[in-house]
Amino acid sequence: MYGSIPSSSMHLHKIATKLHLCYAFFMIRLPYLLTEDGICRLEGDRLFITDRRVYPFERVEVACSSAEEVAAALTAMVTQGGGPLEVALKALVLQARRKQGFERLQESAKLLINSRPTNTTMARAVDEVLMSVKESTALADDVEHSVRRILDRYEAIYHTIGKLGSTLIDDGDQILTTCFAEHTFILSLLYAQEAKKEVRVLVSETRPYLQGSRLTAPALAEVGIPVKIITDNMGPTMIASNLVQKYFTAADLVCLDGTVVNKIGTLSNALAAKHYGIPYYALAISPDSTKKTKEDITIELRDPCEVTQCLGKKTTLDGIDGLYPAFDIVDPDLVTAIVTAKGILHPRDIKEQYI
Amino acid sequence: MYGSIPSSSMHLHKIATKLHLCYAFFMIRLPYLLTEDGICRLEGDRLFITDRRVYPFERVEVACSSAEEVAAALTAMVTQGGGPLEVALKALVLQARRKQGFERLQESAKLLINSRPTNTTMARAVDEVLMSVKESTALADDVEHSVRRILDRYEAIYHTIGKLGSTLIDDGDQILTTCFAEHTFILSLLYAQEAKKEVRVLVSETRPYLQGSRLTAPALAEVGIPVKIITDNMGPTMIASNLVQKYFTAADLVCLDGTVVNKIGTLSNALAAKHYGIPYYALAISPDSTKKTKEDITIELRDPCEVTQCLGKKTTLDGIDGLYPAFDIVDPDLVTAIVTAKGILHPRDIKEQYI
Repeated sequence: MYGSIPSSSMHLHKIATKLHLCYAFFMIRLPYLLTEDGICRLEGDRLFITDRRVYPFERVEVACSSAEEVAAALTAMVTQGGGPLEVALKALVLQARRKQGFERLQESAKLLINSRPTNTTMARAVDEVLMSVKESTALADDVEHSVRRILDRYEAIYHTIGKLGSTLIDDGDQILTTCFAEHTFILSLLYAQEAKKEVRVLVSETRPYLQGSRLTAPALAEVGIPVKIITDNMGPTMIASNLVQKYFTAADLVCLDGTVVNKIGTLSNALAAKHYGIPYYALAISPDSTKKTKEDITIELRDPCEVTQCLGKKTTLDGIDGLYPAFDIVDPDLVTAIVTAKGILHPRDIKEQYI
Repeated sequence: MYGSIPSSSMHLHKIATKLHLCYAFFMIRLPYLLTEDGICRLEGDRLFITDRRVYPFERVEVACSSAEEVAAALTAMVTQGGGPLEVALKALVLQARRKQGFERLQESAKLLINSRPTNTTMARAVDEVLMSVKESTALADDVEHSVRRILDRYEAIYHTIGKLGSTLIDDGDQILTTCFAEHTFILSLLYAQEAKKEVRVLVSETRPYLQGSRLTAPALAEVGIPVKIITDNMGPTMIASNLVQKYFTAADLVCLDGTVVNKIGTLSNALAAKHYGIPYYALAISPDSTKKTKEDITIELRDPCEVTQCLGKKTTLDGIDGLYPAFDIVDPDLVTAIVTAKGILHPRDIKEQYI
């Protein structure tokens, strides 16, 4: 038993065991989707990625034999959120095992980074592996060790943030969330439960992709956290009706001035939280030091045909168009605090802590 | 050509023609769903009701041979919004034509009223017909005349509100709306167009029933008003991004203190309109004089299974529950003005105008 991270097929069990013993996460059981193997797993010469596009209706893994195939799977959104970080790192392990040399590894890294140009966390981690192995004479082993170190570091950060997040939760709280806030949110809830706090969750279904209904709600139900689904127009109503005590989300990006960028729908609930006087907490690994304010953000406009269908079924007549901005920009004055590995920070204190 | 109301099979053409000449609505063409025949039509001894549950994917009419069948269709939500008013009135015509006497007509009226207990507009209109024909010796003719008078009165009110609403629209506006705001909203847009104002609409899809995508967007496209669909989590984002100049909705109910009750999702956008400084206008026939404040409102909680499916397709795992409050309560301080047949009123002036 290695606590929250099931043993992968990476032959890194010993290192993992040591690290996990240090953190002593034994009581906390993550839902399948957030276990290391539930994101992706190496088996033989292939990487199997859990297909979040069809979850929870089908439990399908997409098998990739090369970094090229992994990059294509990432572009096709087989996994999302925190998934690409682990997938890209393990794709480097896959490539290194082929013993085709460092240049070939560099090419794979480039492909992986370009598969998701806005996922800078994944890009930074891939670059870190390249830097650490560039003089290596035992490339395959060194890549595996480097990848393991990075994954364990992230896991430690997730648990640190989860523990901090849990201190913001009071016994009896009903918490509203949007999209799939992954490890940091679910760990906040699990640590709150461990501290004998009763906690319930309302999750916004998160159209058009329904990450709330498909990923968050089944994940919470799996680990025994009471959850109900609402449609995306109901969050402010629940807050206004005193049915919600706190609003929690992840953050796709945090600017140095405390601006939070997160899945579309975050702003709507953040405005209601402010208006009706409940706190909004964003959970974030760290700010993006290249983004000072929202002026530095370009919001991705995705294919509007997603908005005019639901689970593949058309919701309107052909020829009627939609609009699909993928993310919200939430001004710092709407954010009560940002929970980072360095502590629970007021948005205006982010800059000082991270420069 | 009778302008917005196509000739029905009610043999009331002459009266209709006279009235329509008075109002001179010739330039305004309503979308099919809002034409009198597009809501329901009498043909022979049956009433055909357009089935809004499957619109626009199928154009189906539900045929009813008796007031009992009509009441069952209303309960089953074959039509909604303003639809039940016309349907119930024409069901009275159907019953009166059977020459079974006043008592039988009263029984039918009761059934119709009970089919939708919260639709007080429909109930009041049905009662009005009964009152006006209770001493009648030519019941069938008198019911037809009474019904025609009421329908024409409503049509006149719709046009009055539409003309007032159009004065709130500026050339080049992009207007956000929620659900299917029917005659008063679409007439506001059409009168604005007639006044050579360019106007575009963003419509929120309005989960769980998708009235925005299924009814509003096709109706607007049909009459040549540019429309795009957004998911329900995007309205505040569009307002924050200066892509929306005004927010318009219908109102299912207005309290005497100016509180607006409307489809779930209205509050979310009204909060954003207030925060970012754009006006929110509610279009309403009149306030409900039995409701003083929101304390007098009970919000209907509908079947939560609607929230965990979309167009009949499950959006999450079996066993995971939802919550479905059907309406929002919007405090008067979030409402810029209520457009009524008596004028464009500040919420605090409603009481004075209507008591």
